[in-house]
Amino acid sequence: MQIEVKPYRLCVKGFSRRDEPWVGTLLTLSNGRIAVRGELELEPFDTGTLHAGYYLDVPLWRRELAQLPRINGVYVLCSGEPARPEKVERELDLREGLLRVRASLSCTAGNLRYTSTSAAHRRLKSLYMQRVELEGCSGELLVTLPIELASNPFVAGASVRHFDIAGFKFDGAWLSVLLEPKRGGKPIALTSFLRSTGCSELIPVSSAGALGFLVTGCSSRVTLERYTFVGETPQREEPLWDSLLRSHKAAWRELWEKIGLEVEGEDRIAGAITFYTYHLLQLIDEDSDSLMIPSRGLHGFGYRGHIFWDTDLYLALFLSALYPEAAKKVLKFRCKTLEAARAYAAQSGHKGARYPWESVDSGFEATPRHGLLLKENSCQCVDILTGEKEIHITADVAFAVDLYYKLTGDTHFMAECGLHILVESARFWASRVAWDPGKSAYVIRDVIGPDEYHVGVDNNYFTNVMAKLNLERAAHYVEEALSSKSSLLRAVAENLGVTRQEVEKWKEIAGRIFEGRREGLVVEQFEGYFDLEEGQLNSSYAPVRVPVEELEKLSQLKVIKQADVVLALLIQDLVSGVPKEVLEANYRYYLPRTTHESSLSLPIYAAVAISLKDENAGGLFSKVLDTDLGNLYGNTDDGFHVGAAGGLWYAILYGLLGLRLSHEELRFKPSCVDGIRRLSVNISYRGARLKVDLRCDGEPLLHKSFLT
Amino acid sequence: MQIEVKPYRLCVKGFSRRDEPWVGTLLTLSNGRIAVRGELELEPFDTGTLHAGYYLDVPLWRRELAQLPRINGVYVLCSGEPARPEKVERELDLREGLLRVRASLSCTAGNLRYTSTSAAHRRLKSLYMQRVELEGCSGELLVTLPIELASNPFVAGASVRHFDIAGFKFDGAWLSVLLEPKRGGKPIALTSFLRSTGCSELIPVSSAGALGFLVTGCSSRVTLERYTFVGETPQREEPLWDSLLRSHKAAWRELWEKIGLEVEGEDRIAGAITFYTYHLLQLIDEDSDSLMIPSRGLHGFGYRGHIFWDTDLYLALFLSALYPEAAKKVLKFRCKTLEAARAYAAQSGHKGARYPWESVDSGFEATPRHGLLLKENSCQCVDILTGEKEIHITADVAFAVDLYYKLTGDTHFMAECGLHILVESARFWASRVAWDPGKSAYVIRDVIGPDEYHVGVDNNYFTNVMAKLNLERAAHYVEEALSSKSSLLRAVAENLGVTRQEVEKWKEIAGRIFEGRREGLVVEQFEGYFDLEEGQLNSSYAPVRVPVEELEKLSQLKVIKQADVVLALLIQDLVSGVPKEVLEANYRYYLPRTTHESSLSLPIYAAVAISLKDENAGGLFSKVLDTDLGNLYGNTDDGFHVGAAGGLWYAILYGLLGLRLSHEELRFKPSCVDGIRRLSVNISYRGARLKVDLRCDGEPLLHKSFLT
Repeated sequence: MQIEVKPYRLCVKGFSRRDEPWVGTLLTLSNGRIAVRGELELEPFDTGTLHAGYYLDVPLWRRELAQLPRINGVYVLCSGEPARPEKVERELDLREGLLRVRASLSCTAGNLRYTSTSAAHRRLKSLYMQRVELEGCSGELLVTLPIELASNPFVAGASVRHFDIAGFKFDGAWLSVLLEPKRGGKPIALTSFLRSTGCSELIPVSSAGALGFLVTGCSSRVTLERYTFVGETPQREEPLWDSLLRSHKAAWRELWEKIGLEVEGEDRIAGAITFYTYHLLQLIDEDSDSLMIPSRGLHGFGYRGHIFWDTDLYLALFLSALYPEAAKKVLKFRCKTLEAARAYAAQSGHKGARYPWESVDSGFEATPRHGLLLKENSCQCVDILTGEKEIHITADVAFAVDLYYKLTGDTHFMAECGLHILVESARFWASRVAWDPGKSAYVIRDVIGPDEYHVGVDNNYFTNVMAKLNLERAAHYVEEALSSKSSLLRAVAENLGVTRQEVEKWKEIAGRIFEGRREGLVVEQFEGYFDLEEGQLNSSYAPVRVPVEELEKLSQLKVIKQADVVLALLIQDLVSGVPKEVLEANYRYYLPRTTHESSLSLPIYAAVAISLKDENAGGLFSKVLDTDLGNLYGNTDDGFHVGAAGGLWYAILYGLLGLRLSHEELRFKPSCVDGIRRLSVNISYRGARLKVDLRCDGEPLLHKSFLT
Repeated sequence: MQIEVKPYRLCVKGFSRRDEPWVGTLLTLSNGRIAVRGELELEPFDTGTLHAGYYLDVPLWRRELAQLPRINGVYVLCSGEPARPEKVERELDLREGLLRVRASLSCTAGNLRYTSTSAAHRRLKSLYMQRVELEGCSGELLVTLPIELASNPFVAGASVRHFDIAGFKFDGAWLSVLLEPKRGGKPIALTSFLRSTGCSELIPVSSAGALGFLVTGCSSRVTLERYTFVGETPQREEPLWDSLLRSHKAAWRELWEKIGLEVEGEDRIAGAITFYTYHLLQLIDEDSDSLMIPSRGLHGFGYRGHIFWDTDLYLALFLSALYPEAAKKVLKFRCKTLEAARAYAAQSGHKGARYPWESVDSGFEATPRHGLLLKENSCQCVDILTGEKEIHITADVAFAVDLYYKLTGDTHFMAECGLHILVESARFWASRVAWDPGKSAYVIRDVIGPDEYHVGVDNNYFTNVMAKLNLERAAHYVEEALSSKSSLLRAVAENLGVTRQEVEKWKEIAGRIFEGRREGLVVEQFEGYFDLEEGQLNSSYAPVRVPVEELEKLSQLKVIKQADVVLALLIQDLVSGVPKEVLEANYRYYLPRTTHESSLSLPIYAAVAISLKDENAGGLFSKVLDTDLGNLYGNTDDGFHVGAAGGLWYAILYGLLGLRLSHEELRFKPSCVDGIRRLSVNISYRGARLKVDLRCDGEPLLHKSFLT
């Protein structure tokens, strides 16, 4: 099996069952509403279809993204014999959002040529469409195209099947199926239409796990078009391939034109940038008011489809700068769950709103309380403390609101909800900090920072800095609102009951929050970190996988999981500037101490390295591009690494273009990196679009122009 | 849904998905090799087919009975609409081993009459045959008859799918499928043949989870015959319904004639006795050299198909008395795993052979070390100590050998293996006991008896008595062998290296094994039991379900799970006699302290109650008959309670007929119980067959006659 990436094109040659779960993620088709995994349609697989925001209750993981039936399987029999796919070639057309499959199907009676084209329709969000051509069958050809109630894929050793078939009906070439969740929840309907050319008969087929059509009486050249609507059927007119394909392509064209991404250089690098960007764009549902983007996208079941800080912090810059309408939809999810966040804060004895570390549709904490370690002869329930202690998420959401506003100036959103989030999150921090008389500072005790190796630490630098930013920005916006001529924002602030006194308290806390010790310019990640022992770590930046048994030991060492202090500095540098020497000193100190076990680490170090023009920049950047394309963490099977792809855009926007947002304006200080000759992208800024064009023939050269 | 039982006939009227997992167990068809669960064939279900002795490795439960595809599903479409079963009536013909289904299938186009007859062929052990008749369809009729790779049913909150389809081939009306275990193990093949009358076309259908035929072009009267061979296909000639049905019925007729069971009385009671006996007979594979009978039969996945003491102790009397050839096959499994039992003894620091508490095909300990308690927000790994401490199993196996020999006089078996088991098990006990100078007795410390509420107790009466019997009988047989004229048995004893000195030691231990304190005639269940507090227990003999959280508390009370002392006394009474007053005192003492949470409890109390002519006899006996027919424990879904059905035969043979085996002869002291007017059965005794006929018109009257 061979994977090749070029700008706007991913090619996979060959097929092996072993690699297919990984390839299935790379070739996933989605339109932000529905997603169909890319495992080869000609072979049986357990993985199926996902629908954004459709969560169901389960044991242990509380609530998870439901797996809907597989809707793209094509099972070909030639004279009673399964036709075996050979010479499989698949191409994901990133520009048009199409998956093309070519294969030779081998049978005793001879070979067939198989080609197919599939799309998750970019406009008709409930539609997955697939067109199959079969040619050259000399025996009797039978094709089954079912809707398959597969069992859920195994993630973390366990699997739960979500549905029973509550009812179905064949009506000519239409099939409708109603699925009933096994453990409560809204039913969901699937409807499919099949058109065959070159075959005389469509026969309905039903069994416990498969419902669909069998196509028979075929000539030697057959075309099959299948249209499957998931969740809603916009009409019952017979769908037409050509016009639907046209509108799908037009939608993708518009999307790419909006982003304006052009990248020249080594195919491997330029291609990868288009690949990760494509998968991010696939997660945006233009028709939805709010977006729930799981940390592994709609590409798989990693983390059971839960939503982490990835979208708020990692994806925020890409979306706010390139696609602010989508950034707003992501924030809208946090708006919708603000009530739940208020309840969570109250429940944990705090004020304001506290966002859960892992969210699902309901907005309640979905972090499992326990993990299960099952081995040959042992069983261990491991406490999972991130839900309780990884509280920086609340500040990350506030940061995303601030970033969105900085780039859009969207006062309407601020009035509708942005200010609510900022105020309520600030209130959370104001009630969560404690005054330490010894330090004469406000402290935040017993947390987990981004570096999850060190659990229950005091004054994690990242957490404290993000809380400080949160308090400062909330104070800033409230002060603006209260003194604003816009009666709308003022009314909101007043409705939230914020007083100038409360704002002064926020500013006082922000000003006196504990920011840790220093060794020269190096910031201490948390209290006591400098006193830990050094760990033995290979100095390269290849990610290290730490066995669960050794995690305990790591907590006694300076070894960290991912960018923590460096991420905090990058964020501060982005929004308000940090002296280069500080950034550099911390980058040099923490990089060799980081395992990068989280995919969120390398992109941040790469962004800083590029910005610092460090010699490791090229290597780090190149490694980031391996995240999914090279299955760098061995778990791309479970879905796309959304946070890492968002992080890649920190490397591009903050690193390569040198985007800075301080002083209420956009500034750029470009850098280059090996393998990229030119990179051009449209940045949205306060209603305008700025085409930013970086050239790297020698010294970085940046050209900016406003688009009309 | 309504269940009605008569002699040799079980009728189930109506259908509800909620009750179907229970009904599926009651209607399971098996021939001792393969078993097909009885969930309604017209509806989708996850449960499928089992094959005796076919175990595969899994996490946590180590190794479990594999679930093979469902092979009896019949999916009917009428003009594209699923035909809904109404007025469902099912009849299990216990005399002929046939399941007959009648239903009216409702469609918009009108109703169809559906009838089917199914059998797990009693002679052709790999064959499941099914004949379907459909009549009265006015629309277009389509029937799919697939082999369905269902996901495993959930037992104890978890499920593992065992197979992938490694290959398949349609060849005319034949379909062959090769299944490959996902986690290693032998592949297994399924082959099916379909004959249709009244339809013009058979079309192969394949999808990820279903392979089979679709029948189309049907007239208004259709007959479909499906023959599925699991594991091996004896021939590729086209199977013929009539002759196969004849030989199947003839085999069942012979079997019932051999047993000679006739029972008259209330339908509910007489019928239930035939029902439980039928399901026991279904577990016997006449063609297999040895039998692995899981504690839930081949009827479900309870205890993951593991084999416990049920077959050795509970089933032993029924099989040795009524079907000694089968009793021998059950013992042969213990012969085959003797090497593993030797290894287990050595591994735990003992001599001889130690049988595992839970066995699978390999003979190694398969008791899971941990159980998993998964609740809404909690996870707990519970230590399971039965594997380590419930050691009476080894004496239970020895008891089964002794009982078998007592009833058969099968010297050949003793020479082949019986003596090996007796000697090696005696050696285990001789190394497991300890000399207690204070008590001047041999003691067995830190065990779990049948009453599993009290864990790690010293000198459990049942364990000590069974060990004593084991040592005594081993000594007896070895002494006979060593002084025997049969050079064969002498050679075996010599080969095993048994010396007269060793035998003397066994006798000494048996003679001085600690048998606990007495309160009057009441025996103490284990050391310290009498000092425990009384528990609050409803005095009725309805089984009590104790929540796991309360188990800890029970260990401090006199509350017990099941017959323990009373079982030990019954066993002794059966083989050597126990004073009636002792039996009675203990029965009266322990009955009100027993929760009967194990289904193994009530049959033993019922047997003793009948024998004592106690006023509770009828109530206890009636309750036993509810075990599966009334889903008394709420877990018949997981399979048939083999041990309870074996226990029922203690109630019949020991209780009603009053069978006693002391003094090397058969004796009877009959009793009666409400609802039974007459009970007749053939008892095999040393090659002869004794027809024993009990009449209960007034005082019990027993008539015995030898059959020629």
